[in-house]
Amino acid sequence: MSKKHSQYILVIGCGRLGAHLATQLSRGGHSVVVIDLDEEKFAKLGVEFGGFRVEGDAVEVSTLKQAKVERADRLIAVTGNDNINLALAQVGQRLFNVPHTIARVSNPASERAFREFGINTICPLVLAGDALLGEVANDPQKERHQ
Amino acid sequence: MSKKHSQYILVIGCGRLGAHLATQLSRGGHSVVVIDLDEEKFAKLGVEFGGFRVEGDAVEVSTLKQAKVERADRLIAVTGNDNINLALAQVGQRLFNVPHTIARVSNPASERAFREFGINTICPLVLAGDALLGEVANDPQKERHQ
Repeated sequence: MSKKHSQYILVIGCGRLGAHLATQLSRGGHSVVVIDLDEEKFAKLGVEFGGFRVEGDAVEVSTLKQAKVERADRLIAVTGNDNINLALAQVGQRLFNVPHTIARVSNPASERAFREFGINTICPLVLAGDALLGEVANDPQKERHQ
Repeated sequence: MSKKHSQYILVIGCGRLGAHLATQLSRGGHSVVVIDLDEEKFAKLGVEFGGFRVEGDAVEVSTLKQAKVERADRLIAVTGNDNINLALAQVGQRLFNVPHTIARVSNPASERAFREFGINTICPLVLAGDALLGEVANDPQKERHQ
């Protein structure tokens, strides 16, 4: 009960975003397993990362099982490949009943297609675009007057 | 006076983010000039883009002048190179008195250094990380119970 809000979280892909998330989530008290094909990527994890590293191809069910996907509260697919992220989120959701799955999308055009599959998505570029557009809309007071 | 909120905006870099921004800003009624080294990148602009395209190296002051940087209310540097984005934001701010400049940063580790130069930054990865971390923090109700 003391770990009521501690979740078991799979982070797939240990690039910049994956390593950042895994480190922060681990620091936040969650049980984190990070999976990557390339062992060298684990060097990106912060010193505060206290979770597990699984080297392997997450597209193989055996790798997901090694990471104990069947226990996961959450699966976050943030590899550099949008279609792999989609597939992983679907596998987590449908085969292993992971309650929360999310796929990172690099190409905003893919986002609609992903959502048609019922997959939650996050697109860094869309977030950045929205932030910049919001700033332009809300902060016009310093316009040049000439 | 009817164009009170219309700004003159330079978008440097016509990759996915730059093309998205330029199109949206143009659609929003702003005067937009998009600069890229590679003319083929302009194909990413949406059909609603009604601004100008300048093919050239924005690191060359002549290219910035061709884009009429001296009139710009805002300069948004979103090339794929963090250091070039930093340099462009500084040049816009210091040499051409552009009131608002912002540099896209791919590597979150660079963000602090950029801010020390007084440059506004936006890091898509940090935005995505914050969004995902916020979701984990605020939405724990569907945890597995087993």
